[in-house]
Amino acid sequence: MGRLSTLFDPETVAVVGATDREGAVGRAILENLRDEFAGRVVPINPSRDEVLGLECYPDATSAPPLDLAVVVVPPEIVIESIRDLAEAGTENVVVITAGFSETGSEGAARERRLREIAAEHDLNVVGPNSLGIMSTPNGMNATFGPESALEGSISFMSQSGAFITAVLDWANDQGIGFRDVVSLGNKSVLDETDFIREWGDDPDTDVIIGYLEDIGDGQAFLEAAREVTTETPIVLVKSGRTDAGAQAASSHTGAIAGSERAYEAGLEQAGVIRARSVQELFDYARALSGLPEPESDGVAVVTNAGGPGVLTTDAVGDSRLAMASFTDETIDRLAEAMPDEANVYNPIDAIGDADVERFAEALEIALEDPNVGSAIVVAAPTAVLPYDDLAETVIDELEAHETPVVACLMGGERAREAEATLRESGVPNYFDPSRAVAGLDALARFRDVRRRTVAEPEAFDVDRERAREILARTKRRSDNRLGVESMDLLEAYGIPTPAGEIVDDPDRAREVAEGIDGDVVLKIVSPDISHKSDIGGVKVGVADEDVYDAYEDIVARARTYQPDATIVGVQVQELLDLESATETIVGVNRDPQFGPLLLFGLGGIFVEILEDTSVRVAPIGEDEAREMVDEIRAAPLLRGARGREPADVEGVVETIQRLSQLVTDFPAILELDVNPLVAGPDGVQAVDLRLTVDPDELDTEEP
Amino acid sequence: MGRLSTLFDPETVAVVGATDREGAVGRAILENLRDEFAGRVVPINPSRDEVLGLECYPDATSAPPLDLAVVVVPPEIVIESIRDLAEAGTENVVVITAGFSETGSEGAARERRLREIAAEHDLNVVGPNSLGIMSTPNGMNATFGPESALEGSISFMSQSGAFITAVLDWANDQGIGFRDVVSLGNKSVLDETDFIREWGDDPDTDVIIGYLEDIGDGQAFLEAAREVTTETPIVLVKSGRTDAGAQAASSHTGAIAGSERAYEAGLEQAGVIRARSVQELFDYARALSGLPEPESDGVAVVTNAGGPGVLTTDAVGDSRLAMASFTDETIDRLAEAMPDEANVYNPIDAIGDADVERFAEALEIALEDPNVGSAIVVAAPTAVLPYDDLAETVIDELEAHETPVVACLMGGERAREAEATLRESGVPNYFDPSRAVAGLDALARFRDVRRRTVAEPEAFDVDRERAREILARTKRRSDNRLGVESMDLLEAYGIPTPAGEIVDDPDRAREVAEGIDGDVVLKIVSPDISHKSDIGGVKVGVADEDVYDAYEDIVARARTYQPDATIVGVQVQELLDLESATETIVGVNRDPQFGPLLLFGLGGIFVEILEDTSVRVAPIGEDEAREMVDEIRAAPLLRGARGREPADVEGVVETIQRLSQLVTDFPAILELDVNPLVAGPDGVQAVDLRLTVDPDELDTEEP
Repeated sequence: MGRLSTLFDPETVAVVGATDREGAVGRAILENLRDEFAGRVVPINPSRDEVLGLECYPDATSAPPLDLAVVVVPPEIVIESIRDLAEAGTENVVVITAGFSETGSEGAARERRLREIAAEHDLNVVGPNSLGIMSTPNGMNATFGPESALEGSISFMSQSGAFITAVLDWANDQGIGFRDVVSLGNKSVLDETDFIREWGDDPDTDVIIGYLEDIGDGQAFLEAAREVTTETPIVLVKSGRTDAGAQAASSHTGAIAGSERAYEAGLEQAGVIRARSVQELFDYARALSGLPEPESDGVAVVTNAGGPGVLTTDAVGDSRLAMASFTDETIDRLAEAMPDEANVYNPIDAIGDADVERFAEALEIALEDPNVGSAIVVAAPTAVLPYDDLAETVIDELEAHETPVVACLMGGERAREAEATLRESGVPNYFDPSRAVAGLDALARFRDVRRRTVAEPEAFDVDRERAREILARTKRRSDNRLGVESMDLLEAYGIPTPAGEIVDDPDRAREVAEGIDGDVVLKIVSPDISHKSDIGGVKVGVADEDVYDAYEDIVARARTYQPDATIVGVQVQELLDLESATETIVGVNRDPQFGPLLLFGLGGIFVEILEDTSVRVAPIGEDEAREMVDEIRAAPLLRGARGREPADVEGVVETIQRLSQLVTDFPAILELDVNPLVAGPDGVQAVDLRLTVDPDELDTEEP
Repeated sequence: MGRLSTLFDPETVAVVGATDREGAVGRAILENLRDEFAGRVVPINPSRDEVLGLECYPDATSAPPLDLAVVVVPPEIVIESIRDLAEAGTENVVVITAGFSETGSEGAARERRLREIAAEHDLNVVGPNSLGIMSTPNGMNATFGPESALEGSISFMSQSGAFITAVLDWANDQGIGFRDVVSLGNKSVLDETDFIREWGDDPDTDVIIGYLEDIGDGQAFLEAAREVTTETPIVLVKSGRTDAGAQAASSHTGAIAGSERAYEAGLEQAGVIRARSVQELFDYARALSGLPEPESDGVAVVTNAGGPGVLTTDAVGDSRLAMASFTDETIDRLAEAMPDEANVYNPIDAIGDADVERFAEALEIALEDPNVGSAIVVAAPTAVLPYDDLAETVIDELEAHETPVVACLMGGERAREAEATLRESGVPNYFDPSRAVAGLDALARFRDVRRRTVAEPEAFDVDRERAREILARTKRRSDNRLGVESMDLLEAYGIPTPAGEIVDDPDRAREVAEGIDGDVVLKIVSPDISHKSDIGGVKVGVADEDVYDAYEDIVARARTYQPDATIVGVQVQELLDLESATETIVGVNRDPQFGPLLLFGLGGIFVEILEDTSVRVAPIGEDEAREMVDEIRAAPLLRGARGREPADVEGVVETIQRLSQLVTDFPAILELDVNPLVAGPDGVQAVDLRLTVDPDELDTEEP
């Protein structure tokens, strides 16, 4: 696959399947191209000599050299057409034709062939089942949609063609422009990851936005997006967030949705700003496409309208931003410049009779305050405040101070022209103060993404070979689950476990107990018994002299309870001081898109009832592991709330990283739970373990 | 104060302080009235014979009889002017003039005089510091704002005049109409409660909306709103939600914000639908002003656009609504009517080539499904789908089925005319699917409000006189706090407490312990020691024979720890079985606007760290008390999660109600905490108590 620049900036574009038949897609595309495209348009159709006044060629071989071909022939001959194009040297193909993987097994076979031929000839293929692509600098509208995009710096991809047509008509109305637009279709070859890479390298794309229903390869996307977002913001609507939505998405594009929590974590880790609605998508994109980066989170509000000023302040309170606290100098300067009735604290209420000059003064003073990182001008229409002049003032102040300013010149007709003026200088105007704040919030979020450093996962010194051997035990058994008998897996990865052993006779149990300080815990070990306590399979605080009897009792109970259960033995384990410790859980499962997903929470009700957990896509480094601990609501308990001694949080953080390394090293681990991981003041101990392994996958791994 | 109908429908309106001076407020109002008002406009100004061509009178007495006077004279002569008006028989006055309580002590005194004169003459006074009022049926624009409202069925009040001007220009652009509009100003006489009552009685007001920064008398508002919302929806933006916003509101209107949690609870109990932004306010109002009530929460989505259909489904998933599950009959009918590629499950994807007829068929079939309570038509623009015809179809289907339908005909210019058509028939069109869902969600919420029955608080048989005597103990002490020594207060209100007594010598302690089954708990009783456990002031599980020594030890520790602490004695209390019980907390404090606020939560980390609490304004009945228990996140713990025996939830519910009765009976109780209220399987027990009393307030209460 070559670079995609030619896809968006071809000199010659062919429409394969061009026709002048009214209502035909092949005509609509040709018309769109003919009307505005700066390059040459070549219709290809063996049964025509001319289409819409353009010379028509029977096939690619006989046509002039083509940089891009848009294919709208019937599904049965798409493959043939593409082979013809490839042989004629065309590298970029957009397949509009539907009837591929979205329609059943025959279509799926056709799509496989399409992928093969693309790989063979190193083709850039968009689609199939695509609305087409656009690129405004050269006026290329290679879609069959009813609208062309205005020129701008937003590049836009969508997994739904209708989403593009719905948005374009509205965007044109709002004066929102685009650079490149892609309808991704079935994403058989080029997908979201390819386009963010391309636009990440494009100096003329200020923001990448997208509507996606799934992400094919989550890990690849995450890696690419991390790199791209060091320079270019990515804002996505990922639909199918809710159960109902995921079901609808699946019946729409056949996308396997994967878990929403995986997307939430993966997109966050990737540095993607996520929008929940079309409006949010563009509210964010408008702010991100034209404004400088805010130096700090302090927002100044300048208004002539008390109520809307309060509403704006509320919205700032809801966001990650904060109302800037003005310096004394700022307050003195404002007090001097404003009338007595004005409020010179933030929000600055320049009161109802404020003219443009007073707004300019207030805004200038605010922007010169070192605590102000961005500003919002909120205005209600009055007789003394021509919005057009106010718009010019906002632009001047923004340019003079290189601090982001957004506008909320409230009104309808009255605000229209000012809005256009602002837009031309990259300043978004929002009718609703809360949306203006959301715009600034997106700017601050992107600044944080750009500035963050994602630490490389640490490579701990582990015994990988021993781990492999332990996991390989599943090959010799009918059962692919491992339990507490495989605690040495954790030891191999340097995760502390309590002293103890699994034994299969009562005398040995007593021996082990005698080698352990203090009383012990006895637990039945059986892959078939999940609720060990319920059947009396656990005894806590057993003195050495009682261990023999306790062993016999536990085994007897297990046999009575579940005669056909495989009993591996009884675990004799050091009794931990749970009084001063907190039980935590670290789990892993595999998401179809993002791969291994780490989960952290406190044990018991916190996970089971309050669902207070944090999630990350593995592998993760130290910072992300620490975030996982800090972002659960119950985190203060670990940190020593309510007079407790703080737990060894660093030990928890390290254990999460080591487990991240383990599941990254072994894709064969399908699920894993350390429950509990007991975190006390002096360290952590993994007390119990369960995992599920795919033994076949184990064979395919590097030794 | 008389009925307000004349305020909004006067025949003769005076402008007191009318002038033809350019830029003067007195001129702006006169012009607004003169231009459109159906009645007679009378300028009053002693130094003019004529203003803007209208005959001018020197004062109210010499003018013709006035139904309404708008006062714009300087603040110093406002009172005089109003007296003149009152004496001439005018009952309705709007005071535009500023310079009252918002400006300091002189202004505050002036406002007190205004209130007195209004009371004396039974006047309806709007303001002072008001933008004015409007009523569209008679074309009355008695404001100095630049815009008049379109006619409609939304009545609108605002505590910010700028909010009105900001909104009107936009609303006119959107074609949103109003019935009455009031700028509340300082609310010296007429306030939000008066207007919701008035509009609740007005058959031509379909929805009441408002922007408020505070609610003066929360209890009165709650009572009125409860009544009004059985017929008419109320949607409010209450600003100052966040700390920063509350501070801004306070400096804007001098409003004492009260706690956000009190507003949240009070407005919810009042049946008010709360909006967080201007856009939400109108998104809700548009749906509530023209659509029938949904019979159920099942939503059908009909679309030609897969992606937007999925987005709509996500938005439904986020709301209180649910995607309707179609009957087999519906699915069969859809399968017959739609092309093969269509999705006949909900969301119905009629696919990209759907024409108006196909939409009509799909919508009709969906609306006939008994599981469908409302529907959304989501469309992306295509060549075969004229939006204007689609709009007509939506209206026809809505009218035929009396089921609410909202539209999301996406686009800009292309949707404009259809939007107007829909609006005329009361169907809102939203660009963003999530906003369309929010509109339907508001409809469902209002249906629930309308249908709910708020049980009258139960009047338990209590010993009120004994409670008064206990509270009166604070009169004989320098300290207005009561503690565990006043547990008999709870007994007087029928709330169970553990067996026990407060004693002041060790022999008596032992006697009491012997009278109690099993071991006991000893606790130091002192208003000055709050963390009893920390100083060894609590001993749990003391055997009778150890009680003497334990008593001595506890007292000694207290004396050492805090030599100047008043020690009331030592509490000897029954030892409760905490193993099978859950500690809960019931608290009360007083909100400046809403009065007594009840709080419920589980003890320990749940309240302190997770802030998992529920709140209601007292008094409450059984349903609301039960809601308080059910809505905390940890509620399943009480209900018997994780194999525990369920606690006596009914006992908790009754205790909350009895405390509600106690704090309602005694406004003198400023704060009260029952912590813990231990809820076990066999009942509840209030183990500890703290309260703060205002002894002076006690004297003013009815015996």
